[in-house]
Amino acid sequence: MVGRDFFKPRSIAVIGASAKPNKIGFSLVKNLLDGRFVGKIYPINLNEENILGLKCHASVRDIPTSIDLAIIVVPAVSVGDVLRDCGHKKIKYAIIISAGFAEVGRTGSLLQDEVSKTADKFGIRILGPNCLGVISPINRLNASFSLNMPEKKNVGVISQSGATCTAILDWANKKGIGFSHFVSMGNKIDLNENDFLSNFINDAQTEVVLSYLESISDGPAFLKIAKKLSREKPFILLKSGVSKKGQEAAKSHTAALAADNIVMSEAFYESGIIRAESLGEMFELSMVFSELKLTKSNKILVVTNAGGPAVMATDAIAEQSDLDFFVFSGEQKETLKKRLPSRVSVSNPLDLQGDATSEDVLAVIQSLRAGKNNQPDLKLIMITPQANTDIENIARVISEEKDNKTVVVLLGGKSFDEANRVLAEAEIPTFSYPESAVSALASLAKYSAFRRKKENVENFTLGIKKAAEKVINNRHELSDSDLAKLLASYRIPMADSKLTHNSKEAIEAANKIGYPVVLKVTSPDILHKTEVGAIKLGIANDQELEAVYDKVLLNAKKHYPEANILGVTVYKMVHTTVEVAIGAKRDPVFGPFVMFGLGGIYIEIFKDFEIRLAPTSIEEATQMIKSIKSYALLNGYRNGEKFDIEPLARAVSGLSKMMIDFPEISEVDINPIHLSENKDGILALDAKVIFNQANNG
Amino acid sequence: MVGRDFFKPRSIAVIGASAKPNKIGFSLVKNLLDGRFVGKIYPINLNEENILGLKCHASVRDIPTSIDLAIIVVPAVSVGDVLRDCGHKKIKYAIIISAGFAEVGRTGSLLQDEVSKTADKFGIRILGPNCLGVISPINRLNASFSLNMPEKKNVGVISQSGATCTAILDWANKKGIGFSHFVSMGNKIDLNENDFLSNFINDAQTEVVLSYLESISDGPAFLKIAKKLSREKPFILLKSGVSKKGQEAAKSHTAALAADNIVMSEAFYESGIIRAESLGEMFELSMVFSELKLTKSNKILVVTNAGGPAVMATDAIAEQSDLDFFVFSGEQKETLKKRLPSRVSVSNPLDLQGDATSEDVLAVIQSLRAGKNNQPDLKLIMITPQANTDIENIARVISEEKDNKTVVVLLGGKSFDEANRVLAEAEIPTFSYPESAVSALASLAKYSAFRRKKENVENFTLGIKKAAEKVINNRHELSDSDLAKLLASYRIPMADSKLTHNSKEAIEAANKIGYPVVLKVTSPDILHKTEVGAIKLGIANDQELEAVYDKVLLNAKKHYPEANILGVTVYKMVHTTVEVAIGAKRDPVFGPFVMFGLGGIYIEIFKDFEIRLAPTSIEEATQMIKSIKSYALLNGYRNGEKFDIEPLARAVSGLSKMMIDFPEISEVDINPIHLSENKDGILALDAKVIFNQANNG
Repeated sequence: MVGRDFFKPRSIAVIGASAKPNKIGFSLVKNLLDGRFVGKIYPINLNEENILGLKCHASVRDIPTSIDLAIIVVPAVSVGDVLRDCGHKKIKYAIIISAGFAEVGRTGSLLQDEVSKTADKFGIRILGPNCLGVISPINRLNASFSLNMPEKKNVGVISQSGATCTAILDWANKKGIGFSHFVSMGNKIDLNENDFLSNFINDAQTEVVLSYLESISDGPAFLKIAKKLSREKPFILLKSGVSKKGQEAAKSHTAALAADNIVMSEAFYESGIIRAESLGEMFELSMVFSELKLTKSNKILVVTNAGGPAVMATDAIAEQSDLDFFVFSGEQKETLKKRLPSRVSVSNPLDLQGDATSEDVLAVIQSLRAGKNNQPDLKLIMITPQANTDIENIARVISEEKDNKTVVVLLGGKSFDEANRVLAEAEIPTFSYPESAVSALASLAKYSAFRRKKENVENFTLGIKKAAEKVINNRHELSDSDLAKLLASYRIPMADSKLTHNSKEAIEAANKIGYPVVLKVTSPDILHKTEVGAIKLGIANDQELEAVYDKVLLNAKKHYPEANILGVTVYKMVHTTVEVAIGAKRDPVFGPFVMFGLGGIYIEIFKDFEIRLAPTSIEEATQMIKSIKSYALLNGYRNGEKFDIEPLARAVSGLSKMMIDFPEISEVDINPIHLSENKDGILALDAKVIFNQANNG
Repeated sequence: MVGRDFFKPRSIAVIGASAKPNKIGFSLVKNLLDGRFVGKIYPINLNEENILGLKCHASVRDIPTSIDLAIIVVPAVSVGDVLRDCGHKKIKYAIIISAGFAEVGRTGSLLQDEVSKTADKFGIRILGPNCLGVISPINRLNASFSLNMPEKKNVGVISQSGATCTAILDWANKKGIGFSHFVSMGNKIDLNENDFLSNFINDAQTEVVLSYLESISDGPAFLKIAKKLSREKPFILLKSGVSKKGQEAAKSHTAALAADNIVMSEAFYESGIIRAESLGEMFELSMVFSELKLTKSNKILVVTNAGGPAVMATDAIAEQSDLDFFVFSGEQKETLKKRLPSRVSVSNPLDLQGDATSEDVLAVIQSLRAGKNNQPDLKLIMITPQANTDIENIARVISEEKDNKTVVVLLGGKSFDEANRVLAEAEIPTFSYPESAVSALASLAKYSAFRRKKENVENFTLGIKKAAEKVINNRHELSDSDLAKLLASYRIPMADSKLTHNSKEAIEAANKIGYPVVLKVTSPDILHKTEVGAIKLGIANDQELEAVYDKVLLNAKKHYPEANILGVTVYKMVHTTVEVAIGAKRDPVFGPFVMFGLGGIYIEIFKDFEIRLAPTSIEEATQMIKSIKSYALLNGYRNGEKFDIEPLARAVSGLSKMMIDFPEISEVDINPIHLSENKDGILALDAKVIFNQANNG
């Protein structure tokens, strides 16, 4: 959060103000004046008397009154010094416009560190350095060197790239989009996205939040704020820099598959963030979200004056699970038939054909009223420039009948210059192509559904953590039986098992576990254990065990001479046809998450797994289990068994809780888990818990 | 193909010409005149003496000279009559502009059929009905009612939707794109895409072909022409109507999974067609392909005046397997360092930073020349409107240094109006966003690679078809042994096997096949045969067989009480760990194709299969096998076996040839095929060949 003095300062000092019109120090002062800033402006300049009619001072310390905000645009090497002056002057906020810091390399990084330290020392909150500044049209504040002063409207923007800021401003200017606050964050040495997003949550003037980020400063805090923000207003985010490879080498096998971008997508999805995949999509989404109402359901009506675009829009809508076609009621159909030319067949898409007039478009809009409660949530009107198309009047009719449910696709170029202007003035979103319009509307429908859905919060039974704490007891290496106890307290039952190295050990283990047992060669390299006879089920007694022990080992060695064989594991015999795996890991940005999938090839080759951020409720875990493709194999595929997945969901949820309770656990890999046929639940056959090295000891 | 008289007629009759300026019959005459058509124009109108200074006739039959082309715009009910007049006048080509035919329903369809018959009777070739007409700027022919006369340039267009035509023309007008020929096909009762695409193959004025199709009239012919065309010039296609469900119910299991759109995508891919997924993409591709040279490799250089867009472009390029980053040579680096400000770090993306001038951009372009052979294939220059950015001069420098390798991204709106104009005039493609520019450039690089690649044509051994013909011998039900013979002649060896219903039958079969054998319960409903004991391997003699026959049946019944059990099949024992499936089917539009995948869940749940149109060479089949995700299981995954896939590729290729040789075969499903460990090749355990019902008997 930033305070009132940041967005609505009473007095501003521009340190590095210039009298030369081609200097940024000049633009800054001029923009403040042009924006009709209501407070005092003090240009700081050693050599000038006046800048744009304002008296100059040599230093902020010479200003007689107090200063709320400093804008700094001196060379990078001097920023530390002027910041010290600000400190002595007790200025709370400084916007450092100057570039030449970490973005230019080592020397710049050193300067940046110094600036950071100075700011900390004096308790000055910093925006920047290397940023465009801040624009707050609702406060008549243009504390930036932007060429454009945007309109005052409902979109709040934060951007990590100044150039993206200028692109947004320039584009908004053309499309009739306006802003409540506009923040260019630059190198983010202090104030970051979390501060400004927190401001937007309760800011009544900001109805839509738009953000361009290249890095996320504090993942868990970001998600918490984003979740809160998304529940109040749409939060559109373009995250770039996703192709960079910088992930730490993974230790635990299954969790290692969850790459950065997957965790990020999941994190954004869970937080209700509307993710734009490109700058173009971000612009289109901001138009739709700032101008259209949230929908009550997902019914779309398509109106067009040509068949081709109707086909394209239909293709695009059919691809979107978040949209459905609106169906006219009987009464609406009758009214439409009366008012439209007889050549028009009343259906959706509604093709008014090449001769469509503005009266026809008006007839459609008005006829819908006959349906009372049967209304489309969204309207897509598409116009092509045909021989006698009265484009301007159609645009005017749509503007006059504005309902905050409509977007217009203008298919063409030159013929639409005037219509584009009319619609932009009426704040009706326009698109050039059906596909992109449909995609943006689908996002609106999807977000609306998210807002209608209630949040699910699950309470874990108290006491779980205490029991587990006793087991762990600050140790970071657990015995097999302690590991089983730990997992059991988080609803993950472990099968009794023992890794053995000869038949004598195995017989001893089997008697402890209780017959019947299973012998299985343990090796990370052997996939097809059943096929090569490296596993033997249903061993009933000592004699049988003695007889097959060497055989399974031999089979494995014969078929996989290169394999690293660790021994033969003895398990309690559990009848199953399906094995699954669950795991957990910590993402360096977003914190702990859990993973679920069927083992082996399903996860590794088909990437058929799901992740969820921790904590994960039982309900979320159930959805997660049902989301993987191979869920069919748990659900009676080809007359196969149908498993009760609740025990599995409870285990996934429990594991997520364990990751929250014990930050010193870095990774968990539970693989395989047998699903029990007789609805006893689940049984984990093997588990690995890795503790954070740093916390060790 | 259409002849010279269509695109370059010497005389045109406009039947239904009008003197009223708001009528299409007026626009048609006016457009011919405005386009400075060099031949004679005869308006046909019963009531007028003159239209736009041209003498009217009451009928084409009254015209004294011969007529090459008629343009018809009378009401639908009268089209048949005037067409008869055209027939008597021996007119070869007619463009029917009139609407009111099949597109409006039943009555219209009847009228359309009548028109078709009349045209056939007189041998008149028809374009339309329900179309915009034809524009051929290189012949000064505007035989359309379009508002815009496009520029004369290198793009040939055919479109099935008139409205899409008008959108393309309107857009092209703004972007500086021009056309060689422009054809609106309407309802395609006679002339269709194949006729015009054939014309474009050898038309020197057409360097790029753009096409919008909702349906494909003759799939196999289309692919043949498209293949030829794509080898000569880029063929960009937007195919819409892909969401419509209209596929015939499938009989053969595996092939049924290949849905319409998958076959279509594969067909387009094999033909070298550049498929646009949206109208927007089609426009962007047409800009890039009409203005840029084909590339020699795939190296791209990104130049920008801002870091944010550089990150976005890098993300986008990293996602494209068809693009790689260009690397400066030492000499180029030196030159750049000398000529650029010291704050610029020389790398790719090359960020000239916010103060970038047009001199800097020129320096980059000129410094590349120091590299001689080390040149980027593509240049992406991105400009954001920063405080002192001299946008117009940068645009001018880029225009003056035009190299047909460069596209420009202008990130913003209002500030770029002039730059957009300058670049459009210089015919340099411009984009609004980095992502779409990168995507279009990747298409260019991909197509260029396709053009560099030689075609592979495989000759099948003569005589195969003859041997197979003898086996089939016009029968459409084959015995097991004939089926094995048929498949063997196309390189698909079948295992000896026999479906049996009791142990006596099974023993008899086993003695014929030769021990060791496998017993396997045959049922479409049982997936996990191994796990439930419904299969028994390595049976060595009669006694063993007798002992296990009932047991495998019982196991199956116990675990799958609902399953439909057909019997127990006896196979020759072949040791394998992997089963695959191949199949073939006929697409109603594109003809025969083959399918390959690992059986069961891999195909059904993970959709992990590949298809290729027949005929498929061994090389293509090899690529196909290697393309599936589960190929890892054939290639030593987790110390598993590595199979020799050549015999499998030969079988896939052979099957494709069989589909070509015998059009009466509608579907083939060969599943499972065992891959042999000892490099003997492959062995099909089960096969189904379904003959076309219509040809039966």
